[in-house]
Amino acid sequence: MKLHIEFTRQPVVPPVAVLASKEIGAQAEFSGIVRELENGRGISGLFYEAHEPMARKELEKIFTGISSAHPFEAAWLIHRLGFVPVGEVSLFIRVQSQHRQAALQMIATLIDRLKADVPVWKSAARS
Amino acid sequence: MKLHIEFTRQPVVPPVAVLASKEIGAQAEFSGIVRELENGRGISGLFYEAHEPMARKELEKIFTGISSAHPFEAAWLIHRLGFVPVGEVSLFIRVQSQHRQAALQMIATLIDRLKADVPVWKSAARS
Repeated sequence: MKLHIEFTRQPVVPPVAVLASKEIGAQAEFSGIVRELENGRGISGLFYEAHEPMARKELEKIFTGISSAHPFEAAWLIHRLGFVPVGEVSLFIRVQSQHRQAALQMIATLIDRLKADVPVWKSAARS
Repeated sequence: MKLHIEFTRQPVVPPVAVLASKEIGAQAEFSGIVRELENGRGISGLFYEAHEPMARKELEKIFTGISSAHPFEAAWLIHRLGFVPVGEVSLFIRVQSQHRQAALQMIATLIDRLKADVPVWKSAARS
């Protein structure tokens, strides 16, 4: 199980997707993008801040927990911090697994857990 | 709703992911990759064949049907035909939508429907 977790203040650039094994049959990717409306109000972007060491530790725990239900071969999670303008990516996730259900389910579960349990906060910048 | 459906006998090259609107908050992508084991047997790759006009028509119907439950802004589906070696992509799907649930759910549903209802067949080439 290969795991890459990264926080960055630069635009998110997904790493090249090398296949970790010949048994990988599915790769799923998700990008969360800042929308121009936040709660019905026009914004120019979102600010994200995190407690990085705690967030990383929590994410590792979440990945390990999920992997028992949805076994995966490799996963990447990149979260941008600081100001993220409308139309740019704040969160990138990639999962490689043998079967498609694991990859897709894992992404959905990861985002739910990330929003609920990981110390990352956002605030809006009015446009 | 922008829809791109393509069958190709060349390696799958995902088109550049331009955002169709500033209301897109989620992009999900899925790649189905040929594994080296098919039903426990080593293979060198899979052959895919399709009745292209029927497959395209059926896919358009499926996209339209799904969009009422999971509204999306834009979607791409590329299916490779002919011989696809182990480790290469046979199916690529990308969905852009306002919210993540629509994009992720749509990909899962699409693949299920594709396997059940679309005239695309595969056969294994022993290694």
